[in-house]
Amino acid sequence: MDIREKALEKHYEWQGKIEVISRAPLENKEDLSLAYTPGVAEPCLAIEKDPKKSYELTRRGNLVAVITDGTAVLGLGDIGPEAAMPVMEGKCALFKSFADVDAFPLCVDSKDVDTFVDTVALISKSFGGINLEDIAAPRCFEIERKLKARCDIPVFHDDQHGTAIVASAALLNALKVTGKKAGEIKIVINGAGAAGIAIAKHLLSMRFGEIILCDIGGAVCEGADWLNEAQKEMAKITNREKVTGSLADALKGADVFIGVSRPGLLTPEMIAGMKEQPIIFAMANPTPEIMPDEAKAAGAKVVGTGRSDFPNQINNVLAFPGIFRGALQVRARDITEEMKGAAAYAIASIVSDEELDAEHILPNPLDPRVAQMVAKAVADCAVKTGMARI
Amino acid sequence: MDIREKALEKHYEWQGKIEVISRAPLENKEDLSLAYTPGVAEPCLAIEKDPKKSYELTRRGNLVAVITDGTAVLGLGDIGPEAAMPVMEGKCALFKSFADVDAFPLCVDSKDVDTFVDTVALISKSFGGINLEDIAAPRCFEIERKLKARCDIPVFHDDQHGTAIVASAALLNALKVTGKKAGEIKIVINGAGAAGIAIAKHLLSMRFGEIILCDIGGAVCEGADWLNEAQKEMAKITNREKVTGSLADALKGADVFIGVSRPGLLTPEMIAGMKEQPIIFAMANPTPEIMPDEAKAAGAKVVGTGRSDFPNQINNVLAFPGIFRGALQVRARDITEEMKGAAAYAIASIVSDEELDAEHILPNPLDPRVAQMVAKAVADCAVKTGMARI
Repeated sequence: MDIREKALEKHYEWQGKIEVISRAPLENKEDLSLAYTPGVAEPCLAIEKDPKKSYELTRRGNLVAVITDGTAVLGLGDIGPEAAMPVMEGKCALFKSFADVDAFPLCVDSKDVDTFVDTVALISKSFGGINLEDIAAPRCFEIERKLKARCDIPVFHDDQHGTAIVASAALLNALKVTGKKAGEIKIVINGAGAAGIAIAKHLLSMRFGEIILCDIGGAVCEGADWLNEAQKEMAKITNREKVTGSLADALKGADVFIGVSRPGLLTPEMIAGMKEQPIIFAMANPTPEIMPDEAKAAGAKVVGTGRSDFPNQINNVLAFPGIFRGALQVRARDITEEMKGAAAYAIASIVSDEELDAEHILPNPLDPRVAQMVAKAVADCAVKTGMARI
Repeated sequence: MDIREKALEKHYEWQGKIEVISRAPLENKEDLSLAYTPGVAEPCLAIEKDPKKSYELTRRGNLVAVITDGTAVLGLGDIGPEAAMPVMEGKCALFKSFADVDAFPLCVDSKDVDTFVDTVALISKSFGGINLEDIAAPRCFEIERKLKARCDIPVFHDDQHGTAIVASAALLNALKVTGKKAGEIKIVINGAGAAGIAIAKHLLSMRFGEIILCDIGGAVCEGADWLNEAQKEMAKITNREKVTGSLADALKGADVFIGVSRPGLLTPEMIAGMKEQPIIFAMANPTPEIMPDEAKAAGAKVVGTGRSDFPNQINNVLAFPGIFRGALQVRARDITEEMKGAAAYAIASIVSDEELDAEHILPNPLDPRVAQMVAKAVADCAVKTGMARI
């Protein structure tokens, strides 16, 4: 039985991957009076007097909503709100198992930006943080921007920022392996959608040298007539040498390829045209832009993919549980670029110098230190940068 | 330390009364591949093909949202969304402990009917049922009506229907104790708000004789100039003898008083003017319309209150866990009057003839048979009346 058949069988067996349990004993009349009426009036009044107490007197302080509209689920595309829920539940299960964060899955049945934003904002006081998930570009940018402006709690679109953070952690260690220097490298990101743009922005904030975004139309460059709004903005801050042409053109002399695009888009010839010791992160799922053995044969020094069956899996699970754990711990008002950077450095630092090599640039996602160290780095950074509220 | 001080202390200790746990093991790479990528794609595709599968492949089939706007919380009134959450969490804890229903608390930050309805409808595909809670009248009527029309899952405002069901269960057994006959009694309900109107409607559907609603202005009667819309509607179907005047006037010759109003509104003189063996349900919280000993001294035969420290506690917890358990079991499309009636008869039936007396008309809320028997009655009724979907 292959993994997908077995997964379906397991899902029927589990009947849901999350469960809501009671933390209060309810075995006798006194228990009822304490957890429910009349005793419950007391915490209610305490929160009415000081709404911040909701973080201590209810689960809010440890609770994240995982919310989707079901429009960009895995590689499956727009499969609708109900069909997206197994992914949301999986994410919630990971939050709990990896970082003891309570996470609850929700789908919003609308593809309208403002309807989605209103819905999430109106229920946001039930939560300590919001993890947006599997929302199609360019809608996801506007949704995140508007929700950040309206909500007093961290809002984080994991497909953008989680991916960016883990890619930048991988890059930090790949540079060590190849001896390349952060400020001097040239990076080509293929796929100028939500993930690609988020990676570009994050790598810029980490000061990783020159970045060129590419999409179906070729290099994202000021003046190109095929750019959407988000790409136009990126054209102003990336590709400062105004390279035009195809992905192959952009890759000439580049140090790093980061693919969040489609299978087969990176060829051995393109790798051959890159600078020595090329770093290849071919993250298309489930089939990468180039298979690792082919990339190696063409001269790649370090190869990462999104898959667990190859070395160097660039997997969001290295980031999001610890990031929210840290943000919740200090009741951060937002998850900022600085906090994302701190998370990337923390992930990279877990691989010791002895362990570090071309086949081992990232920690094992199952290593319990990962969430702990990411959480600590994120919380410390929030405190240092004035983002913490306790 | 009194119960409320102790409750506050316990709430700080619990840090939330609910917790979201994982039902899927996540200990090795295979676990990750089954519960998350790439395996999770398979249940997603199965649900895309047939959305009903969301009841089996996600937690939806066992999951209820407990949703408030925080406008009518306990006896505290409009204390706001955050401050209402300890009650919502308490309710969720009861759902899980009493009926193994997973329930998740949400507050919606709006007092506008359509905004509230839109928000709840847009997230309703995440759940198998919706329990509305602590929403002020008359908004709660319109909210429930509109949500029932829009959602394909049961929508149930517990403050209305839960109370009505338990009151009618109590009445069924009080009639046995007093030898009165359902079709022949005269019932006066004091408090023509959400709960009072819901009780009246439910007792009408149960064919409990003549009903008069009273409010501050006196008896709700066709033609009275102080009635709101909901009360006008009730005036058409209750008080067929068109009694006018005060509560005292309405109570003359009545068999049953049901109070969902305020402390002290029922006097010994009023009870003295009722028919022999008066039945008094003084449900104002925390202080009843008349204290039980005073009511007894005035001639009341059976007295019930909302309190756990007197006999005959008329407590919603006897109804809602089993009602949703039953509705979820057969994937009911709605919770109908028939199903509510079945729940009332089930609750009443748990008190055996040997146990039944004036001080013992309702089962103990902690008796595990309650939710089981209510669930069975509700599920059977749903199947019989064509409301079940499996």
